[in-house]
Amino acid sequence: MAKLNWGMIGGGEGSQIGPAHRIGALADGRFTLAAAALDHRPDVGREYAMRLGVAADRAYGDWTEMLAGERNRPDRVDLVTVATPNSTHFEITKAFLEAGFHVLCEKPMTVTVEEGEEIVRIAEKTGRICAVNYCYSAYPMIRQARAMVRAGEIGRVRLVVTSFSHGHHGDATDADNPRVRWRYDPAMAGVSGQFADCGIHALHMASFICDDEVTTLSADFASTIPSRELEDDAMVNFRTARGTVGRLWTSSVAIGRQHGFDIQVFGETGGLRWASEQPNQLIYTPVGGRTQIMEKGEAGLSDEAKRLSRVAIAHPEGFPMAVANIYCDLADAIRGEVRDGLPRAPAGLRSMAAVHAAVASAKAQGAWVDARPPMFR
Amino acid sequence: MAKLNWGMIGGGEGSQIGPAHRIGALADGRFTLAAAALDHRPDVGREYAMRLGVAADRAYGDWTEMLAGERNRPDRVDLVTVATPNSTHFEITKAFLEAGFHVLCEKPMTVTVEEGEEIVRIAEKTGRICAVNYCYSAYPMIRQARAMVRAGEIGRVRLVVTSFSHGHHGDATDADNPRVRWRYDPAMAGVSGQFADCGIHALHMASFICDDEVTTLSADFASTIPSRELEDDAMVNFRTARGTVGRLWTSSVAIGRQHGFDIQVFGETGGLRWASEQPNQLIYTPVGGRTQIMEKGEAGLSDEAKRLSRVAIAHPEGFPMAVANIYCDLADAIRGEVRDGLPRAPAGLRSMAAVHAAVASAKAQGAWVDARPPMFR
Amino acid sequence: MAKLNWGMIGGGEGSQIGPAHRIGALADGRFTLAAAALDHRPDVGREYAMRLGVAADRAYGDWTEMLAGERNRPDRVDLVTVATPNSTHFEITKAFLEAGFHVLCEKPMTVTVEEGEEIVRIAEKTGRICAVNYCYSAYPMIRQARAMVRAGEIGRVRLVVTSFSHGHHGDATDADNPRVRWRYDPAMAGVSGQFADCGIHALHMASFICDDEVTTLSADFASTIPSRELEDDAMVNFRTARGTVGRLWTSSVAIGRQHGFDIQVFGETGGLRWASEQPNQLIYTPVGGRTQIMEKGEAGLSDEAKRLSRVAIAHPEGFPMAVANIYCDLADAIRGEVRDGLPRAPAGLRSMAAVHAAVASAKAQGAWVDARPPMFR
Amino acid sequence: MAKLNWGMIGGGEGSQIGPAHRIGALADGRFTLAAAALDHRPDVGREYAMRLGVAADRAYGDWTEMLAGERNRPDRVDLVTVATPNSTHFEITKAFLEAGFHVLCEKPMTVTVEEGEEIVRIAEKTGRICAVNYCYSAYPMIRQARAMVRAGEIGRVRLVVTSFSHGHHGDATDADNPRVRWRYDPAMAGVSGQFADCGIHALHMASFICDDEVTTLSADFASTIPSRELEDDAMVNFRTARGTVGRLWTSSVAIGRQHGFDIQVFGETGGLRWASEQPNQLIYTPVGGRTQIMEKGEAGLSDEAKRLSRVAIAHPEGFPMAVANIYCDLADAIRGEVRDGLPRAPAGLRSMAAVHAAVASAKAQGAWVDARPPMFR
Repeated sequence: MAKLNWGMIGGGEGSQIGPAHRIGALADGRFTLAAAALDHRPDVGREYAMRLGVAADRAYGDWTEMLAGERNRPDRVDLVTVATPNSTHFEITKAFLEAGFHVLCEKPMTVTVEEGEEIVRIAEKTGRICAVNYCYSAYPMIRQARAMVRAGEIGRVRLVVTSFSHGHHGDATDADNPRVRWRYDPAMAGVSGQFADCGIHALHMASFICDDEVTTLSADFASTIPSRELEDDAMVNFRTARGTVGRLWTSSVAIGRQHGFDIQVFGETGGLRWASEQPNQLIYTPVGGRTQIMEKGEAGLSDEAKRLSRVAIAHPEGFPMAVANIYCDLADAIRGEVRDGLPRAPAGLRSMAAVHAAVASAKAQGAWVDARPPMFR
Repeated sequence: MAKLNWGMIGGGEGSQIGPAHRIGALADGRFTLAAAALDHRPDVGREYAMRLGVAADRAYGDWTEMLAGERNRPDRVDLVTVATPNSTHFEITKAFLEAGFHVLCEKPMTVTVEEGEEIVRIAEKTGRICAVNYCYSAYPMIRQARAMVRAGEIGRVRLVVTSFSHGHHGDATDADNPRVRWRYDPAMAGVSGQFADCGIHALHMASFICDDEVTTLSADFASTIPSRELEDDAMVNFRTARGTVGRLWTSSVAIGRQHGFDIQVFGETGGLRWASEQPNQLIYTPVGGRTQIMEKGEAGLSDEAKRLSRVAIAHPEGFPMAVANIYCDLADAIRGEVRDGLPRAPAGLRSMAAVHAAVASAKAQGAWVDARPPMFR
Repeated sequence: MAKLNWGMIGGGEGSQIGPAHRIGALADGRFTLAAAALDHRPDVGREYAMRLGVAADRAYGDWTEMLAGERNRPDRVDLVTVATPNSTHFEITKAFLEAGFHVLCEKPMTVTVEEGEEIVRIAEKTGRICAVNYCYSAYPMIRQARAMVRAGEIGRVRLVVTSFSHGHHGDATDADNPRVRWRYDPAMAGVSGQFADCGIHALHMASFICDDEVTTLSADFASTIPSRELEDDAMVNFRTARGTVGRLWTSSVAIGRQHGFDIQVFGETGGLRWASEQPNQLIYTPVGGRTQIMEKGEAGLSDEAKRLSRVAIAHPEGFPMAVANIYCDLADAIRGEVRDGLPRAPAGLRSMAAVHAAVASAKAQGAWVDARPPMFR
Repeated sequence: MAKLNWGMIGGGEGSQIGPAHRIGALADGRFTLAAAALDHRPDVGREYAMRLGVAADRAYGDWTEMLAGERNRPDRVDLVTVATPNSTHFEITKAFLEAGFHVLCEKPMTVTVEEGEEIVRIAEKTGRICAVNYCYSAYPMIRQARAMVRAGEIGRVRLVVTSFSHGHHGDATDADNPRVRWRYDPAMAGVSGQFADCGIHALHMASFICDDEVTTLSADFASTIPSRELEDDAMVNFRTARGTVGRLWTSSVAIGRQHGFDIQVFGETGGLRWASEQPNQLIYTPVGGRTQIMEKGEAGLSDEAKRLSRVAIAHPEGFPMAVANIYCDLADAIRGEVRDGLPRAPAGLRSMAAVHAAVASAKAQGAWVDARPPMFR
């Protein structure tokens, strides 16, 4: 089976997300890095692309060049990854989808809800895949959790409680560091800080595992470092279409929490717990029974969990392999074997609607607001 | 040093709280169980008291008998513990305080805010100790956390996040079991279910460690088992007098969480974490530094942590010893050495004000309300 | 039910083991401290005893005085606890047993195997209880483990692996501190250092849970701090009467391990794991199945586990309550309800035989030696 | 920088080790799978190689074909991975080294000590790299531990304690399953079962972190499932060239332990602990200080730890990335930047000497024997 051709925009040398995508795309041998526009400095990007093995004529200076160059090649890239600054996601994703490319867009997919709706419509119209990199949802034990909820193994879900709270922006003396400051500056980060950055991963995860959608929410935002205009800590209560109660806490000033992404799902007949710092385990408790530790690779897991595991039980697979699982799903989808776990444009849109809803609620002292994008109401 | 005479009301055979109080009072040899009215069935209570070594003439049939019997004895009890059903706490505590006895009252101290204010006034007027059994606050590593916050070791506190969430009422098929049902029935439990039962422990703990008071709050209540009139799950956001942001989640349907009481305190220069299932450790992270595991009994702890530890480092001390620490503080206070960590009537009153505020907020779709009792506004 | 009269020898003010015994004996209200000889300085001991509530005429200067004073009293103590320096255990225990008292002796019960055999014979002859304070075996979840092994829930036991390794003597600059040094000085500690101090707890535990006895062993001793004559680290491989393979590691230089007592039992159809730093859980894995977390207080535990728990599930009970469980078993045994979990003189003797066997093996480069006392061969 | 050409022998479809090598070699984009002989069934291997993107003329039927085919190509493979059955490692590795290829050999490198010595000599003579896949040693936090020991951060190492114990062969009813049985059959597995399979990883790790070599050892082997000729459980005590005391336990019947590879290193001024199920943390305790949790990706780690980390702190990197780190070291070494952490033929030889020494010791009732290969004595 020939490898698929893959193109990458953004994620240049020294970026954090770049290596994760490259490992994710390359690790399973299903993609070749065939084209790239890696840096906002054209020469730097070209040079780095060539160092990564991209042919000189496909090492582009920017995304418009890449679009022009790839558009009409017979061996044009099968998939484009968009890992540029947030404000450019919409424009680039739109352009490539319209040119008939499949796209994997980093989160957030867009800045506004309207843009999000447009991407959803374009993806529908063109029939191209527009995936969004909610990569945590591709951990095998998250797929397992989703399979268990779907199979009714914990009954109707009553309650989902999730947090994504770290402390890496907790140092006020470092708050003016440009690497940190932009995240809390509306001019650069948009309407929301921590909730848009990390909270939406948690919100997506809640919907993903429960196979459900957030309908309304109430938010409490705080800028615990006073110089920040946008929130560095947020609590969001929500309700879903199926009536589940949701609680989501996200923070960047929780000093001592390194990653702090976890989720707990409580149903009528059982509970599930998972934490990203130990992603290979899923903790399951049947009502009235003992807590059980489920392990990636154990016998009897769901097909999805099995398909997305590579090495034996208790050999940990980490974040890079979760990203690789997104690329596995993409390779399959491109070849026509659709994976319903792959997060797509509607998920990206719902996140943006939730961000704007949370901002509105927080401004209105926690009033409950509709969290759905207009097109899904 | 002669032992102090101790009297107990409620907490009869088979009750859960009774043994904890008896171990707590007796373990350190500072109290003798001298009088008791242990059961709502007078004969049963008398008989059990005598089995516990109480003299026949001080094994009372009910609390009024005990009050009458003890009032004028020269060797009358130094301390009365009130461990009766919640609705009776006010009346009994009031009567004994007014008769000049020191009292340890189980939580909740009262049912209404007005009653709470009355107890505070009586305690003040009589000069008697009215303690409330927020026993978790007496764990050595909680006292350590409080000492560290006071000493500025984590700087100004920005954020406190706490949960007290278990799953022991998560089985809908058991919801009509009388042992469970009363907790969600307003006729028996009052205005609040899970928040009044467990949430106030967490709220007290947040105030206790931070040496601060809750001023306003916003609540989201849910009855995830629909037959329940009162909430079995609640999220409460709050703010404190010093401007700290607070987040409190409490649930009784979190299947798989056995006890689930934990607290995280995040300040300008560090974070602290503690969980009741591993109470002998306090996890501390200085900003920009590594997470450290502090252990009960290690060198260099605060005086309070040292005073309330009994056995060497890494020999766990559990819940009964936390209750015993409340009795240690009481014995010292009765003898005139006041321990400022001992939770007293104002703490009990604040809890009741918070319960009523949370109920009001939840009814008003999470509107922010004043959480303070009128007398402390 | 009248309380039993209890006498204590050793364990004076400032000692570590004294408070554990007093809490253990008093917490459940079954014993009164009626007599005591607490300190090697007669006046100090008498004064402290009186401060603890002992009547002046029963606050003795030393154990011989106490023996003389108690021997003929009609209200003489029902139980004597011996918590004096190791080298005196034999003499005191022997004297009190022969005078018809029940005795709880701290470990090690004796210094030599011959003395141990003599104590076993005296206890048999007099019909008095001679218990040894292997208190870890009284944790509810250890009793549960034993019950499960006995019930065949993990099948024939193939392998038991235990360690008791801490780092509190790991600082060479503190090695001459008298509080530490004596433990590695044969003149004061006898033939063995760390193995006799902590290792025998682990060895007892292995036998206790498996309901089995060590028959042969091979030891590797090391003095990792060279100035020490006796071992501060030891590995002991052993075999039991039923053919189980055993592995025991004990160390006092394992810097970072605070307590480090744990045990794993592997049978034909399952495995069990327990650690003293989280004593309220027992980890159970059926062969081919998932690991389950068993909790003190959960439904369906063995009678022994239930009997020795005081507070609800997930309210931790720690080391002092384990000691209290030994006193519960003693109180029952004194009143005629024999508890077969109570560790007695034969267990104390077997430990001493194992210590001497391990020393001999270590000297003979790990040769396998008989670990049984002659009287049990 | 052009990619290096990589060839793979063994590790065909359905094998466990194959995917780990492919991910390891491909994930960082430094190698291309250019040639392969993947299966003992020539056609199956060729077909699979082509599916993996290998050109038809380099999809070989067996290793001899591959050697002949690659030997004289100008674009011949830069590195050959040998992942065939253990008994063939020696012959293949020897042949490729002698033909001037660099080799990564799966462990065990050889079956006999003599063969191991021969490989060491050939690697020396040819100047080719002969690496052995002790991939756990390539986890960033293991490299960090080694760097800390080298820098004297825990002082002279007194004691190293390691285990590699799982329970996946603990089911006697599955013991005749061919997938399991061969491991305990001397005809197929050689002189040792579990120690040769897992124990040598732990032994290598101890040497690796401590930068030291095992000199003598004493072993206790057990076949806890009686039908097994070779051991399924082993304890090995050892001493190193620098006088460190070592303790190693390995088991395949430890039901409930999924992976169970951990190591603890105790020095004069501190202790380190690591476990493969949470590989991104290293637990460090300075003598007299608090235990600290070190995290992959935290500030201030050693150059080696930094170089071998890909994603940010608390984003776990697992087993496949550890294998990838071996390939990183190989790519660097091939290009002339030698990485001293890369395990090479002498490490493979020392393992075989230790296996034979342990077998001899176990047969001699644990007698202490020389564990060094003759050429290193």
